[in-house]
Amino acid sequence: MTSSSSDLDPTIAERLKRNDAGLVPAIVQEESTGEVLMLAWMDDTALHRTLTTGRSTFFSRSRNSYWVKGEQSGNAQWVREVRLDCDGDTVLLKVHQEGPACHTGTRSCFDDRRLPAVVITPGAEGQR
Amino acid sequence: MTSSSSDLDPTIAERLKRNDAGLVPAIVQEESTGEVLMLAWMDDTALHRTLTTGRSTFFSRSRNSYWVKGEQSGNAQWVREVRLDCDGDTVLLKVHQEGPACHTGTRSCFDDRRLPAVVITPGAEGQR
Repeated sequence: MTSSSSDLDPTIAERLKRNDAGLVPAIVQEESTGEVLMLAWMDDTALHRTLTTGRSTFFSRSRNSYWVKGEQSGNAQWVREVRLDCDGDTVLLKVHQEGPACHTGTRSCFDDRRLPAVVITPGAEGQR
Repeated sequence: MTSSSSDLDPTIAERLKRNDAGLVPAIVQEESTGEVLMLAWMDDTALHRTLTTGRSTFFSRSRNSYWVKGEQSGNAQWVREVRLDCDGDTVLLKVHQEGPACHTGTRSCFDDRRLPAVVITPGAEGQR
């Protein structure tokens, strides 16, 4: 799917690989600590607004509308850096996050949500 | 969409919110540096294998098959920690990455792919 009615720079728009709903996932990372805070979705307009306003702007799939992070909660995300990945289907936002990023009140959406996983130390098995 | 034929722990499976293709995005982060390396996709089986083998396993949408990161390239991802986000629709993998994570040869899929963005320093505008 391609977007034709956004103000996004055409040289960026042509690199975007959107899903069937016209969206790409955006990973949000706290610049100062490297902590991954959340993942949300952007279309061309949300990316354009994020690049030009200094505030993270996403597209809500459930509400079918744009939202500026922190506009309701006050927990703003100030954009520090924006990157597009090698194949143009994922955005990485580095931000300065005010207060908790998660709507549950935790700093990150991944806090306290660890799954049990087998961890192998490569050296210990002497294979690689 | 729910998956019924995987070995994934049912208590984890019931928390997963998959897209229409039965997949969730998985953010991959280097544990030692916090660098975000890439994003790939998992279904229940890929998550189960990731949790039980110590190696990142994904589902390729284009090839319609599973792949173990580094199996072809030798650039293995050793799983250090796995987290599920607050609403169960995104996985965060912390890994030890051997060599470059990106198929283009860069360390991360986001290296050298910065977009021009407006950066506002909150204090400078005196609003928050």
